[in-house]
Amino acid sequence: MAENTITDRDNVFFEAGIKLGALYHQFTGSPVSLRTVESLETAIAQSISVQPCVEKITVSIDRDMVRSKLNDEFGYCELEGRMLNVQIDAKYGSVMAHVSMEFNKELDYPLMKIDKIY
Amino acid sequence: MAENTITDRDNVFFEAGIKLGALYHQFTGSPVSLRTVESLETAIAQSISVQPCVEKITVSIDRDMVRSKLNDEFGYCELEGRMLNVQIDAKYGSVMAHVSMEFNKELDYPLMKIDKIY
Amino acid sequence: MAENTITDRDNVFFEAGIKLGALYHQFTGSPVSLRTVESLETAIAQSISVQPCVEKITVSIDRDMVRSKLNDEFGYCELEGRMLNVQIDAKYGSVMAHVSMEFNKELDYPLMKIDKIY
Amino acid sequence: MAENTITDRDNVFFEAGIKLGALYHQFTGSPVSLRTVESLETAIAQSISVQPCVEKITVSIDRDMVRSKLNDEFGYCELEGRMLNVQIDAKYGSVMAHVSMEFNKELDYPLMKIDKIY
Repeated sequence: MAENTITDRDNVFFEAGIKLGALYHQFTGSPVSLRTVESLETAIAQSISVQPCVEKITVSIDRDMVRSKLNDEFGYCELEGRMLNVQIDAKYGSVMAHVSMEFNKELDYPLMKIDKIY
Repeated sequence: MAENTITDRDNVFFEAGIKLGALYHQFTGSPVSLRTVESLETAIAQSISVQPCVEKITVSIDRDMVRSKLNDEFGYCELEGRMLNVQIDAKYGSVMAHVSMEFNKELDYPLMKIDKIY
Repeated sequence: MAENTITDRDNVFFEAGIKLGALYHQFTGSPVSLRTVESLETAIAQSISVQPCVEKITVSIDRDMVRSKLNDEFGYCELEGRMLNVQIDAKYGSVMAHVSMEFNKELDYPLMKIDKIY
Repeated sequence: MAENTITDRDNVFFEAGIKLGALYHQFTGSPVSLRTVESLETAIAQSISVQPCVEKITVSIDRDMVRSKLNDEFGYCELEGRMLNVQIDAKYGSVMAHVSMEFNKELDYPLMKIDKIY
């Protein structure tokens, strides 16, 4: 196969990236408290699960970070990218990949990365 | 009281408006299907409920509109403002108000409006 | 006039609140650097200016906050509510009001407030 | 090289996908009119250009679709995914790829796709 032919492998990573970018920019900024964090996790996972190529998705929001960011006066904060731990299995054709987003302390950045292909 | 003094009544409408604008622009665009619509309703209502001045909020998404917008190929659609029916009781000081957002067919517009003060 | 009749004054604050809530939740989270901050200010102001009741809007993003939030590795950050200074003149019927959003250090909160009516 | 080793090619498509997903869910929903459409195009392109791996990006919004969606009463509409034509050159290590988003009439869907690798 020619090197410049687009493969299922190329597409599975492209599609997986789309999902992480979509999730991040759709839902960060949502008002959240410790009381409401679970419903937000559920809705985010279910929302992204309807999109093409998503085999499985889990979303977890770091309660400790939420707690530390709660405004003293108002008792809530906003969902930030660094609070999110997202694990996605994506499939395109016969190719399956696992990608994730998790806060990387060293980089001080909510890092999206490819974990494996199988 | 001078006419240009800002009152609790002024503030309750200001705060209620903030909530409707926030809700709309935070959550429209979310991928949704008939299977996931309930978790999205719950998360939206809970998310906005943590903000200042919100006494009560109910959010309902029109299933018929979701059904009619589902993409034939991919089986999902995006949450649109016109799909939302939102009812909010807001309170500021001693003043309580009810505001809502609901699709207005005549205007072809997801209309936000003040319903009453009490 | 009965106290529970909804007035232009009520509506001008409701509409002004909608705009601030919309602006905040539409645009925070946008990737931004010192090179691109001006185009984002312009687009935010112009976008909200098309909505009903907006007579005038100015949007300014705090360059010092952007600079201090730039990621060391990647050289950009996200627009946060606390970076925004927004001034809006809203009009409903014969009533004009000025509202604003500005970071309040004491509350550690991007405070939206009514400034005056005239 | 083992088939399950993650390559620059894998990463360039993953990163390109992230950008398209981010752009879509950050900016759709923005109020827009024919007067303000250009500033929104500029801001979207500049905003995404600051993210990792973006070599070049162009964003164009379909004026005819905007015109056809303008609300009769209020004279504006919201940015929809189908209005967007986005072209991105992404680079990871030594690999460069071109991806795009464009409305696909047949699918009635704003299709994101890989165009080529070089």
